[in-house]
Amino acid sequence: MWQLTVADLEAIAIGAGILGTGGGGNPYLGMLRLRRLLEAGHAVTIIPPEALADDALVAVCAGIGAPTVGIEKIEQGMETVWALRGLEREVGRPATAVVSAEIGGGNSIEPMVVGALTGLPVVDADGMGRAFPEVQMTTFFIYGVSPAPAVLCDEKGNQVVIRHAKDAVTVERFARVVTIQMGGAAGMALAPMSGLQLRQTGVPYTLRLSCRLGRAVRQARREHADPIAAIAGITGAVTLARGKIVDVQRETVAGFARGAIWVEGLQADRGRTVRVQFQNENLIAWEGDEALACVPDLICVVEQETGEPITTEQLRYGQRVVLLGIPCSPLLQRPEALAVVGPAAFGYAVAYRPLGGIGPWEEIEE
Amino acid sequence: MWQLTVADLEAIAIGAGILGTGGGGNPYLGMLRLRRLLEAGHAVTIIPPEALADDALVAVCAGIGAPTVGIEKIEQGMETVWALRGLEREVGRPATAVVSAEIGGGNSIEPMVVGALTGLPVVDADGMGRAFPEVQMTTFFIYGVSPAPAVLCDEKGNQVVIRHAKDAVTVERFARVVTIQMGGAAGMALAPMSGLQLRQTGVPYTLRLSCRLGRAVRQARREHADPIAAIAGITGAVTLARGKIVDVQRETVAGFARGAIWVEGLQADRGRTVRVQFQNENLIAWEGDEALACVPDLICVVEQETGEPITTEQLRYGQRVVLLGIPCSPLLQRPEALAVVGPAAFGYAVAYRPLGGIGPWEEIEE
Repeated sequence: MWQLTVADLEAIAIGAGILGTGGGGNPYLGMLRLRRLLEAGHAVTIIPPEALADDALVAVCAGIGAPTVGIEKIEQGMETVWALRGLEREVGRPATAVVSAEIGGGNSIEPMVVGALTGLPVVDADGMGRAFPEVQMTTFFIYGVSPAPAVLCDEKGNQVVIRHAKDAVTVERFARVVTIQMGGAAGMALAPMSGLQLRQTGVPYTLRLSCRLGRAVRQARREHADPIAAIAGITGAVTLARGKIVDVQRETVAGFARGAIWVEGLQADRGRTVRVQFQNENLIAWEGDEALACVPDLICVVEQETGEPITTEQLRYGQRVVLLGIPCSPLLQRPEALAVVGPAAFGYAVAYRPLGGIGPWEEIEE
Repeated sequence: MWQLTVADLEAIAIGAGILGTGGGGNPYLGMLRLRRLLEAGHAVTIIPPEALADDALVAVCAGIGAPTVGIEKIEQGMETVWALRGLEREVGRPATAVVSAEIGGGNSIEPMVVGALTGLPVVDADGMGRAFPEVQMTTFFIYGVSPAPAVLCDEKGNQVVIRHAKDAVTVERFARVVTIQMGGAAGMALAPMSGLQLRQTGVPYTLRLSCRLGRAVRQARREHADPIAAIAGITGAVTLARGKIVDVQRETVAGFARGAIWVEGLQADRGRTVRVQFQNENLIAWEGDEALACVPDLICVVEQETGEPITTEQLRYGQRVVLLGIPCSPLLQRPEALAVVGPAAFGYAVAYRPLGGIGPWEEIEE
């Protein structure tokens, strides 16, 4: 159990920005919102998964939409709380705690905003150990939690409930088209699960991991040390390339931000060009026709000098970046997970070759 | 109060097919389904609006989708009943009766199917006195009934609830994209209203009107009399043109069947060409750049020899047809209604010029 401080929050925004692989929504906006709430006296309690009773009711809270929309369509602020209340009405029981769908960008912070506004504790876990663009792509659903009911709310108070759905992909399809009609971004609460289910299916301790990661980056900056080395020290990241973004392709289509960047190598990487394709999140890094890294492993774009993560909607020409590859959670490497979040699930005809290494992942403490 | 017979049903399928102005879904399929239920011993009780208690709970039941989809994606059969049960759960109270959104095609019959399967009475009324393509286009909503909550179900058991919506157009937008994700056709229950609200906002007695109209057409066929004259006798229809369909344009786009037909005049109309544009339903009839008739007045395409209505998905080259114009319900002619269902609401820059005449519309009996 842990009371979030402003310093923790600022660290999490960096750490979860890195783990978010470019997506999950803008962490800066979420950080500003939550910092304001903390300064106004709201409190956020973070609890470890093992603190949940087996029959606790945990709700997943998230923003949904294209990150490109999220930077222009700022939240009214209550969307996700309204969605949570709608979910509680649907279940007929109040939630015990909330949890993040993805430890990335704004969606690492959104459940803490809900926690601050409602007093509910936030579970230190998520459903990806990174960020992914589509609803079905969480360990919760891959390992058997039902995503329905799911509730979507927008800033006008419109509320849509996906009450029954035959599978998680169906929830994704309904939620995506409703989100587009809500203006391209919405608040969502879904997948009411027991404390036991959360422990069996979630990726644990990703908030404290994000916090530690962000702190290490800030410490390196203060000490004029190499922030990339600090990131690698905590996550086991390998450097895929180091260079300058020389082109960005991006379109907001079918509710997603899709595109690619081209990074031209500098220093030791001079002469190399690496292309990263994204759908909200970075999915695959190519050098010529060789995949250097691909989903579900994490491909992170950070500023070379500061280690600051760059989300996909913020990528632009001229940025000096390092492309990092971080081994994904073991929960994403099993065959049933690769069917949902491996390269083929995104339409890439490459075999998943793990980056290797154990990464920063922990198991639940008994 | 009235127990539906198979003969009534067959008459309603014709009469509501005519009043449906080409839309509302295929009445033949609905008729077959309900005839099977009646023959299996199910009963349908039709009650007049004045039989409802002021605080009765009436639910609108309908199929939603493009008619072109409806002829290939046959209903599983329980979609609309599931939607009604979902609506009752949302309201927290069982429905007293069901009512039709539109007295057109399959949607005149769908509430009777629900009535047969649940034992609930069907109110002799609807929300259009014709058919229209979009959810907001009913007298219920024009005159103040809330369309939300609205529940959509598909044949797989998927269920989506539009719990709160700022207006009826928002319900239409959410419902349309969800319907497309459900395969282009779905069952819907919506707009829980009181008996009093139904009497204040509905178009009354359109089931008995359809029945009377269908019987008159069948009688004319039996007696080798002119079915067009029979239709005109009951509805006040004027003949806009008589001729042969020489071209059909049709595409299923954004969840609707959109297109146009060209009718080349025969007999007294030789030399004339009339074009009818439709969006699920017939919207406007043009001769050159003059609008002969337009929404909200009814434009009906019927077979010349038999008076059989032809829905827009069944229009094809070579059919010998009569284009009829029927004055719409007075409830659709007020300014607040024309804003929602007049030509401008469909994008036509023409002023609404009523066909004139009183049409077949009745007022509620006291």
